Amino acid sequence: MKYLIVLLIFFAARATAQIPKLYNHTSNDVHLIHSRLLNQDRRIYIHVPKLDSTDINTALPVLYLLDGENHFHILSAYIDYLRHWHVIPPMIVVGIVSVDRVKDLTPTNSLTNFVSKVDSNYKATGGNEQFLNFIQQELMPYMDANYRTSPFKIFAGHSFGGLTVINCMLMRPDMFDTYIAISPSLWFGNKYVLRLAEQKLLNLPMKDKKFFYSAGNEDGTFRDDLLDFDKLVKKHSSKTFEHKYTYYQYEDHMTEPIPAYYDALRFVYKNWKPDTTK
Amino acid sequence: MKYLIVLLIFFAARATAQIPKLYNHTSNDVHLIHSRLLNQDRRIYIHVPKLDSTDINTALPVLYLLDGENHFHILSAYIDYLRHWHVIPPMIVVGIVSVDRVKDLTPTNSLTNFVSKVDSNYKATGGNEQFLNFIQQELMPYMDANYRTSPFKIFAGHSFGGLTVINCMLMRPDMFDTYIAISPSLWFGNKYVLRLAEQKLLNLPMKDKKFFYSAGNEDGTFRDDLLDFDKLVKKHSSKTFEHKYTYYQYEDHMTEPIPAYYDALRFVYKNWKPDTTK
Repeated sequence: MKYLIVLLIFFAARATAQIPKLYNHTSNDVHLIHSRLLNQDRRIYIHVPKLDSTDINTALPVLYLLDGENHFHILSAYIDYLRHWHVIPPMIVVGIVSVDRVKDLTPTNSLTNFVSKVDSNYKATGGNEQFLNFIQQELMPYMDANYRTSPFKIFAGHSFGGLTVINCMLMRPDMFDTYIAISPSLWFGNKYVLRLAEQKLLNLPMKDKKFFYSAGNEDGTFRDDLLDFDKLVKKHSSKTFEHKYTYYQYEDHMTEPIPAYYDALRFVYKNWKPDTTK
Repeated sequence: MKYLIVLLIFFAARATAQIPKLYNHTSNDVHLIHSRLLNQDRRIYIHVPKLDSTDINTALPVLYLLDGENHFHILSAYIDYLRHWHVIPPMIVVGIVSVDRVKDLTPTNSLTNFVSKVDSNYKATGGNEQFLNFIQQELMPYMDANYRTSPFKIFAGHSFGGLTVINCMLMRPDMFDTYIAISPSLWFGNKYVLRLAEQKLLNLPMKDKKFFYSAGNEDGTFRDDLLDFDKLVKKHSSKTFEHKYTYYQYEDHMTEPIPAYYDALRFVYKNWKPDTTK
């Protein structure tokens, strides 16, 4: 008898279930943009929050995220959720999908890989300058033309993406308002960016800007290099811009972005309050 | 001249951008299921991971998530990401969208609200028994009939959802293999579930099962009640099932689920290893 009831309920449920529709909690578009500077098509994921009537005309900050294929879903989920509960403002997430990350996300040409071996996959390293040109001269104007963007921009990346974020901060501090570097690969190119930091941090024009950087419990010199970098930040820049370094003891290189991106968003918006006058 | 170049690039970018397509990183279906037991239609979000050729015939664990409208996006993102990096197995997420959560997610009738006032919105409280019947007798058979499910089931909820998870664990320990209760509202009904725990925890048949529970830095007695509950767990059940209690000092009631659901997944699968024999 019990099985008969279960069977009846089961058929009842099946019979009345409607055809599945796509879950539309968020607007996630895929754009294919031709970059003349890079001479290639670039795939871009764009997440736009749903705006209610009080927000509909608000210009939105934009978070530019490297390795979009990897972290776009989590960043979009965080931003939707935290925005819904009035912890951060609504913002657009732009996930830049990797084509050749070893080329695009490295600031100098170096054939030496993570385990100190000459690596033929590293032949094309050193494309960071041109890749940042693409973001600044093609992608940002595209976003500003097609979306209601505010001038406030965040740059976020992990690993080689984190290296790119710090290289950008040192070389083009005006390009973004906030920099988030999760486990930057400072080991790359005989610590090229660490040496760059020694030159650039002292007079870096970062007034009112913010910087979050973190390491996990990783192989190699990620943490040691970041501690060296942290010393430089504390020595040269403590008073000129807000920064936060976090170490994740229980996270490895690939799990660390989950808590780190959350903590980074909370750090960036720790003093933010929703506008209740509207 | 500089502006002219920017303008040209900008038009070039606009001209070559293709029509946006929907970002299809995940499969997220919305099902509308008629429940005969509840006499209402229930909206269910279902996230199914993309399976590669080695996984395509794998039966998948199912995580049943309360307050689906609130936490489904984040849980889906975590599970996709962690699964991609071989930290947890692929699994299905079933987000049960709330209709009347004050009714469905409370185990007894009590008119007293969070601030100890009689509250007419609490008239319908006490629907937990029937709501769990719906999950067990209608929703689970629906999932098992329409998806390639394994018997392994996780039950996860926050606030009244966390209360429901603990009530279910105490009253129906066989229904799920793992229970996750984020900031359970143990204050409800003159601490009804806390008193139930005193009776039930001693001989609770939870062998090989897991239980994660947590509190944030919240108003009211969330943390104190959960510490009382934790004492009962440690006194009666420490050796019979794996459990973990975590306190989130820097999170409030609504932000806590972000780190807590992540930590819960890591706890549940801390000893899991991918099958490399396939």
